[in-house]
Order: sequence, then structure tokens, then C-alpha cells
Amino acid sequence: MNRQALSTEDRAARKRLAELAAGRGFSIHQDAVANLFIRRDGSNPSLPPVLIGSHLDSQPTGGRFDGALGTLSAFEVLEALEDAGVITERAVEVVSWTNEEGSRFSPGCMGSMAFVDVGDIAGWQDIRGVEGARFGDELAATLNALPEARVQPIGHSISAFVEVHIEQGPVLERAGVPIGIVTGVQGTKWLEITFTGEAAHAGTTPLEFRKDPLAAAITAIARLQQAVMPADPLARLTVGRMTVEPSSVNVIPSKVTFTIDIRHPEEDVLASIEARVIAECRASAEDHALDAHIEKRFDMAPGTFDAAIVDVIENACESLDIPRMKLVSGAFHDALFVSRVAPAAMIFVPCRDGISHNESEFVSSENIETGAKVLLQTALSLAQGAAVKSA
Amino acid sequence: MNRQALSTEDRAARKRLAELAAGRGFSIHQDAVANLFIRRDGSNPSLPPVLIGSHLDSQPTGGRFDGALGTLSAFEVLEALEDAGVITERAVEVVSWTNEEGSRFSPGCMGSMAFVDVGDIAGWQDIRGVEGARFGDELAATLNALPEARVQPIGHSISAFVEVHIEQGPVLERAGVPIGIVTGVQGTKWLEITFTGEAAHAGTTPLEFRKDPLAAAITAIARLQQAVMPADPLARLTVGRMTVEPSSVNVIPSKVTFTIDIRHPEEDVLASIEARVIAECRASAEDHALDAHIEKRFDMAPGTFDAAIVDVIENACESLDIPRMKLVSGAFHDALFVSRVAPAAMIFVPCRDGISHNESEFVSSENIETGAKVLLQTALSLAQGAAVKSA
Repeated sequence: MNRQALSTEDRAARKRLAELAAGRGFSIHQDAVANLFIRRDGSNPSLPPVLIGSHLDSQPTGGRFDGALGTLSAFEVLEALEDAGVITERAVEVVSWTNEEGSRFSPGCMGSMAFVDVGDIAGWQDIRGVEGARFGDELAATLNALPEARVQPIGHSISAFVEVHIEQGPVLERAGVPIGIVTGVQGTKWLEITFTGEAAHAGTTPLEFRKDPLAAAITAIARLQQAVMPADPLARLTVGRMTVEPSSVNVIPSKVTFTIDIRHPEEDVLASIEARVIAECRASAEDHALDAHIEKRFDMAPGTFDAAIVDVIENACESLDIPRMKLVSGAFHDALFVSRVAPAAMIFVPCRDGISHNESEFVSSENIETGAKVLLQTALSLAQGAAVKSA
Repeated sequence: MNRQALSTEDRAARKRLAELAAGRGFSIHQDAVANLFIRRDGSNPSLPPVLIGSHLDSQPTGGRFDGALGTLSAFEVLEALEDAGVITERAVEVVSWTNEEGSRFSPGCMGSMAFVDVGDIAGWQDIRGVEGARFGDELAATLNALPEARVQPIGHSISAFVEVHIEQGPVLERAGVPIGIVTGVQGTKWLEITFTGEAAHAGTTPLEFRKDPLAAAITAIARLQQAVMPADPLARLTVGRMTVEPSSVNVIPSKVTFTIDIRHPEEDVLASIEARVIAECRASAEDHALDAHIEKRFDMAPGTFDAAIVDVIENACESLDIPRMKLVSGAFHDALFVSRVAPAAMIFVPCRDGISHNESEFVSSENIETGAKVLLQTALSLAQGAAVKSA
């Protein structure tokens, strides 16, 4: 699956979802960052809606379930309510957040960040995608590709947000439990590091003349690999991207750019790992007489979800007699940003071998159905009752 | 300078040189790998010609002198002989060897390898360039772009070969000597290593599930950097290329491909470094439960040039009262392959700060002129005298 944010593939998926919504008579709208909303009205228009959903964009070599599962499960809930003729007091809205993955345009979660007003939409316009496309241009093209979805002011009031998502880890599968109730999310930081040296002949350049940015990057990352992971089993350190220029077998590189993704459930430990990364990179660059440029691309603190929403999901499982367990998410999700403006939580379903961000990502039909049932029951409780108070 | 082998830029340079040759009434021809020859006849057609020249292709971000200097200095020699109306007993031929750099199509020195029949021209046809182009197609297009140069059988008999080239190192400049007489070349091996793991989520994948090929590559290369260079000051180990897939900040890579260029003047030491590289890469791949594929892309043993030709150059410098020193080349050159079928040697001129394979590569006009004068005097000696015997 390659349906990266704001790409033609992403636009086609939005178009299809909008057609399905129109077919059921639901109203649709977008906002300034192309978050897509599908609304089924409630009996009391004065109450803010219950929001459910996830995202439609994928990694360049992603799976079929990461994001799409939660978005389509939410739409299924809307259809189930419609099919059953249920009248809810609150409207129920399905959302597909823009650019959750951040693989094409960094940072990730742009849609939910902008929705809760922590994102800099103006500043994002000139961001270039990995293939050179400009964010602002791709955003405009995506908005224009869906003229039937009127553009509303961003960040409208909601009463709660619940997101169904694949676990992207092996915990549920190993425990043989179909539902995970997510109580929080570990923190994530993305750093982009650029070392600039000097291209020179691989065979003739004297040792003291070599300014090799790749050698420096390798030294720094090797030290970090030894120091951070698995030294701390809760820590994650991943170099997902590395580009080398001019990229010739017999030329000492002139420039190397690489990313480091670090994660930890404890904010202070996460900060100390970030400090270690920066220190090792600067030290190695200095040893090799290189320029070092370090930029923070993404920074999401560990977060805790709303206890009241967690209880509603727990009760939904109880009423449906579905086994569940509480866990903390290793991945960040839009729900963590949305939880800043409304009570929110997440529902995880198991994925085979815990594999995600990979074409072999898989979720069984039974688990998909179970997740949708829990989401339906949760949405019913939230939409019929009074506004949920944050614990 | 970006004039990579068989590119449109390379064809334009060949075209220009052919026009200059036609303008002076010299005959031109090509062979099956598009080596380009410009001939000024001698008085005795039965004697094989003296060959002088270098190459016209460059690195993707190369300088203006690497290769082009030796080719144009050789053409300047032909023009000087013509201007002076000198009659040589042997014909003097200028050559521009195809794909010396090997940056677009690996291996390098294809032209001189094929000329001395150590290359596998048929096997090269399907080699893909870094941008995907097929060698065979680009070769045919390059040959067809120069219809005025008839195609002759490859590997015609020659009496000697002399190549002027920039030193690509700082030795001459530091010593303040304008001419280096090259007595030999250090050996070079190129390895291409591919580690294949499994793409997975950077944040949620348990440690025991991670199969990270980039982490494995970094571990192996870091060990090699400590063990090989600068431990042995004569050794060179360079990773010039590294590509990471799928290249997403929050995805553990599925595949990493990198090249290692190793050099040493002693054949047995070079072999032991190669063995060390292979061992470290296999060990690290095994530690990370990865597939490892290692391919040898280029293998040039250290070589020694012809003592008689070295003496001719020495005498040329003496007769012109030009300071010179003997040295061993850190870079491989076409002359090393040609020396397998005819006595050969090289003339080095200083380049600023020893910088090459870089846009800031520079050679002073004075040094260029000195190099051309020595080449002219050397060519005169070789073309007028009897066949040079190999020492």
C-alpha cells in the first residue's frame, strides 16, 4: 500500500469515502488542512458531535489497515446507526485526519495538530515532500479534488474523540485478547541530522585531508546503538532515512543526511536520550572536522488518555462480553493531539506478528468486526448521553 | 562538472574533440566500447603507433581536469607536432578511454579493460546505470552519435602508452615539484553489500522482532573503520554509496545497499582487508538475523609501470630542465590496464590541495603547460626511436 498524504492515491481514497457518504445522505466537509469530516446529525443540534475516525494516508510501503481500518470502522458505525434507524442526541462525525504518517511531508499528525491549534499551517506551506513536491500545492490540489465537501473553519467543537487502530505491536496477539483499551501513548521525537564534509578521491586523499560525513555519522550512530537500545528495553532508536551525496563508489561523500526516531514512555528519559543523540552527533562531527546541522522535526510528549472515555470503552466491552486489556501505545496517534481539546481514547485490535508499516500487515476479519462493534457501542453511549466530562 | 560515461554530456565532448581533430586533418576512429582514437600518421606505416591520452568522462560532481586534462594535453601534442611540421617515424595516436570513472556504470576503466581483453563486453551490455539506463543502449547511442569515426576492431597494436593526469593528491604540491613520474599504482577493490531485513514500525516493534539492516551495516562499518584505517596508514576504506529502503523516518528499514572501496599498494594486505570486510559484514548480518549479499564490483591488483618508459619521461624532464619526482599513484588509471599489452607509464601534474572528484578541483596554467611539454618531448622520443623494449 502506497497512499501517502495528499498524493493522487490519497485523493482517490478521499473521493471514494465521500461518494459512500453521499450515497447514505451524510453531510461532508473539509477544513484548511484537508481533514475530512462525515456527519450524521443528532436530535439536538446545539450539542457538539461525537468524533470517531482515524487517517487514510499510508507509509510508502505500508499496510492496508494502519489508519484505513479506523476510518472505515467509524464509517461502518455511521452506516449501522443509519441502517438501524437509531436517533442519537449528539451528531456522530467520522474524521479522516490529514498526513498522520509524516513519511512524505514531515511532521506527522499535521491534521490533528492543526485541529487543536498546535500546528503552524502557514509555516508548513513551503515544506517539500521527499520527491520535491510542495506541501501547500498538494494541499490545495487535494482540497480542490473534493468540491462537494465544503470547507469549514478548522477546529470546530467536539464532545469526545475515539479512534480505532491496529496495535502495530504483538501484545494483544500474544495475550490472545481481541481488544486493547489504550490508556496512553509513549513520547516520540524526530531529529534530522546533516553532516557536511568535502567530496574527495577515495584513493588519493591523505588521511588528514579526509572530511568524511558518512564515517562521522556511522561512528555517532554506532555509539548511540550501544548506549540507548537495548540498554534501556523501553527505549527505541531508529535511523529510518539516510541519504549520501554525491553517492559514487570511489568518492568520499560530501554530505550525509539522516533521521533519528526516538521513543520512550517517560518524558525525562526521552529528553535525556535526545540530549545524548545531539551530543554524540556534535562530537563525531567535530572529530571529523565537519559542519553539523541538527533539526527537530517532530516532538510529541508521552500522553495519557481520558479516564472517563476509557471507562466508556471498558463498559462497551463489558456489555458485549468482549475480552479486553489496557495498554500503552508504542506509536503516536492523532488521538493524542485531539485529547488536548476533548476527552479522547483509543481502541486497538491485534495485528498478525505485530507487523505494521509493512505490506504484510494483517488483521483478521473477526478482530476487525470486534473492533467495530466496540466502537459502535462506545459511540452510542457517548452520543446519547450528556457531554462526557474529563476525569 | 557532470559528464558521466556515455551520457549526452559525454557525447557532446567527444563530438567537440572529433570536430577539432577533423579541423586539423587527423583521422579518427572508435572501437566496440567507444574508445575514441585520433591519429597523426608517421613516416613508417608498418610500425605500431605511440598512444597518448586519458579519458573524458567525469564523476557526477567532478572537476574539470580529471581525465580531460590528459586527453586535451595529448591532442595539444598532436597539434604542436602538426604546427611544427615534425615528421615522426611512428604515428602518434590520442585516445579517450570510455568510462574510466565507473560512477555511472560500474566497473570503471571499461574502455582500457576491453582494449587489453580483460573485460567482458558482452556481460556489460545489461549493466544498469545508477539512474536505470542500460549500458548497451547508451554505448550504442554514443557510437551512433559519432558517425564520422569509423568503428575498428578493438585492441589494435600499439608501441607504448603515456597518460598525463592530475595527481589527485597533495604530494607534488607540498614538495613544490611540477612533474610526478608515476612508477606504479596501488590496488583497488570495490564491494557492493546488500542487507535485507524487514520493514516495521519504529515505535511499536519489540526488540526481538527488529530486523534492522541499517543498524547491522552501521555496526559492521564502524568496526571496519576502527580496524582498517587509520590503523594502517597506507590503507584506504571508503563507503561512497548507501541507499536505504523504504526511507521513512519512523520505519525500520527493510533493505540497505552500500559500497566499500578499499585500496592498498601491497596485494596481500589488500586481500586481507577484503577478507576482513566480508567477515565483518557477514557477522553483523547474522547478529541481526538478516540476509547478506556481497558482490565484488571491481578488482585491480597493484601494478608497476614500465621502467624504460619511466626513463624516457625522466630524460624528457632532464632535457627540458624540469624538476620531477617519482611516485606511486593512489588512484587507478587506464594506463595500469594498458600496461598489460604495451610498455606504459604516467605523468602527474599537481592539483590544488590535492582535491579531486570535486568541483573545486584545480590545476594552474603553468603546471598544465609543463605537463604538456613533458608529454610532447616524451612522445617525440617514443615516436622517432625504435620500438621501446619493456624492461
